Amino acid sequence: MADNSLIFPAAEFQGRVARLQAQMAARGQDALLLTAPADIFYVSGFLTRFWESPARPWFIVVPVQGAPVAVIPAIGAELMGRCWIKDIRTWPAPDPRDDGISLLADTLAGLVPAQGCIALPMGLETHLRMPLADYANLARRLAPRDMVDGTATIHRVREVKSEAEIARIRASCAIADRAFDRVPEFAAQGRPLDQIFRDFQIALLQEGADWVSYVAGGAGQGGYGDVISPAGPQPLMRGDVLMLDTGAVRDGYFCDFDRNYAVGPVAPATARVHAALHAATDAALHQLRPGLRACDAHRILVSTLARHGVEQAGGRLGHGLGVTLTEWPSFTPLDQTELVEGMVLTLEPGAIVAPGRILVHEENIVLRADGPELLSRRAPAEMPVLA
Amino acid sequence: MADNSLIFPAAEFQGRVARLQAQMAARGQDALLLTAPADIFYVSGFLTRFWESPARPWFIVVPVQGAPVAVIPAIGAELMGRCWIKDIRTWPAPDPRDDGISLLADTLAGLVPAQGCIALPMGLETHLRMPLADYANLARRLAPRDMVDGTATIHRVREVKSEAEIARIRASCAIADRAFDRVPEFAAQGRPLDQIFRDFQIALLQEGADWVSYVAGGAGQGGYGDVISPAGPQPLMRGDVLMLDTGAVRDGYFCDFDRNYAVGPVAPATARVHAALHAATDAALHQLRPGLRACDAHRILVSTLARHGVEQAGGRLGHGLGVTLTEWPSFTPLDQTELVEGMVLTLEPGAIVAPGRILVHEENIVLRADGPELLSRRAPAEMPVLA
Repeated sequence: MADNSLIFPAAEFQGRVARLQAQMAARGQDALLLTAPADIFYVSGFLTRFWESPARPWFIVVPVQGAPVAVIPAIGAELMGRCWIKDIRTWPAPDPRDDGISLLADTLAGLVPAQGCIALPMGLETHLRMPLADYANLARRLAPRDMVDGTATIHRVREVKSEAEIARIRASCAIADRAFDRVPEFAAQGRPLDQIFRDFQIALLQEGADWVSYVAGGAGQGGYGDVISPAGPQPLMRGDVLMLDTGAVRDGYFCDFDRNYAVGPVAPATARVHAALHAATDAALHQLRPGLRACDAHRILVSTLARHGVEQAGGRLGHGLGVTLTEWPSFTPLDQTELVEGMVLTLEPGAIVAPGRILVHEENIVLRADGPELLSRRAPAEMPVLA
Repeated sequence: MADNSLIFPAAEFQGRVARLQAQMAARGQDALLLTAPADIFYVSGFLTRFWESPARPWFIVVPVQGAPVAVIPAIGAELMGRCWIKDIRTWPAPDPRDDGISLLADTLAGLVPAQGCIALPMGLETHLRMPLADYANLARRLAPRDMVDGTATIHRVREVKSEAEIARIRASCAIADRAFDRVPEFAAQGRPLDQIFRDFQIALLQEGADWVSYVAGGAGQGGYGDVISPAGPQPLMRGDVLMLDTGAVRDGYFCDFDRNYAVGPVAPATARVHAALHAATDAALHQLRPGLRACDAHRILVSTLARHGVEQAGGRLGHGLGVTLTEWPSFTPLDQTELVEGMVLTLEPGAIVAPGRILVHEENIVLRADGPELLSRRAPAEMPVLA
């Protein structure tokens, strides 16, 4: 955790707001209404785990010109007061009669002319973090102002990381690198998977994570069944592949990568798939450039797997990363998002070992003008073998 | 983590669905659409930390009669397949052209007649976890079916915990009790607060938490400034009060309580406020009964503080607890929710020590026919003193 709650100097946030305002101006939007934890943290530096409580909505309004306004529950006034935003308006939430809606409507009405329009994220990978009935009420009260989709406004800005952000993500990746190095200390044949998950989280905290927002993984003979399940008490067995995947957080920034470990000798089919995944990642590390599209990254990964005679597992094969565990774009055949310099991305090819058995390999990168720079330490070409 | 992903036998979930269906029938609702992680876990037992990724929406549809349907991204099929719900419909998310909306619309259209109505949570303490534009599209496609507020339908059911749920929350509380016992091992004068937060999370994991979704707290001379901030590197000083508050999770169920520790001798003003908070909690422990209302709990707490000549801190003084860190009702003067047997609640009086300095005291209870039963081990009447 940084020395204050701002994480960054005010100039970092002011630069973000200026970039948001340029997007808004280009799209004819008079204000941007943000309700999601990541968006609010991104604009304000307001970092808290209190989002875990769904009880209260929180709002930041970014006008197309001028300073942002925080419209928040009184319980957050002290912490927001330590951030750079000066205009902080509070109400005593939760209030079943009016949970900040009058205050927010008045704020927006004061910033947006009656014929103007208010953007909020409505598209893919976004949610509205406020009660739906309150939103309908808000939109009615603000009429004839239009409520329009602000997804692109926030996405085109957040997806390009500053050097300060890249440094934070690199620090989170380094924490996970060190924790992955220590997996052989607590993962061995006979050890229950749920205890391994706990020990891995402990290692991440010991290595400097502020908290561990995500740990998933799996273990199974030669591969695992899925990559999002919590752990059960089953012990690691000879022949298993153990996969651990983490989104550890430091200063509000995530890493997101996994590592695979073999329990005893690696079966030939598993070794072959692992080599193909490693080669696919290498291909992406060599070929990705600004100007390609997310679907091109998918093509590079899949075609390399195919050349190795390996069948991809379903789903996306990589994605953005930053103030949430996953961000756009998605490495799928459908995502046309242009890859640009400064994007932080995961390369996450998955492949099928046998029916119901997969392997997934993941690295974190930042895209530079001349190609990817690794943020995670490159996984070994051969799977490490546990005791 | 339980032996399987179900957490409970299927009968537990079937009972929940039957209670939801009784609420729906009484309110004339033909189906309930759920999108929030807690609601989906509550109905299905689908437990994952993958919610940390905002990329994909997930849906459960509970018809007023018959079995629920899961409409989910393909990446969740394996895990959902280990849960009790049999009708699982998947799509390859994220799909920017149609991210499950056609599949969901077809599912709902097949379950709800054209003149029927579909309930979803729209009220206080709820969010819609899907893109707003997709929701608008869904509602258009389902017209003339009405989309109505299902908040009460889910709240009246979830707020009454089964004995199986109470046992899980008790287990989470016991984990936190043991971790709080160990705070003197790692919290002492000179130790940085962020290291104490890490060590506390480590202790929670060592004592059996599956993961630690929430840790907050504070430290300051005689009291702290707020209760939702992350920790900075400032060292504990003589005269500080350290507060740690946690929502540790075991088998998907939360605890939520805090403990206070003094660094060196307790100042008289601090001791007086602490005694008042302890007395206010005692009063609630003695007086709460089914049939009272949430606002009555607030009155009991505040009037006891007043009798001790202590001013309450703002905000709610307790709330529900279960599959999220905080649930309704709220102990405020405004919340008329009736307290019923089987509710799991926090008692959380806060009071002002000096301008900008507060103390907060918290316990977890289940409301029985004859009054509260503690789930957390009662905090000591006098604040423990750290080395």
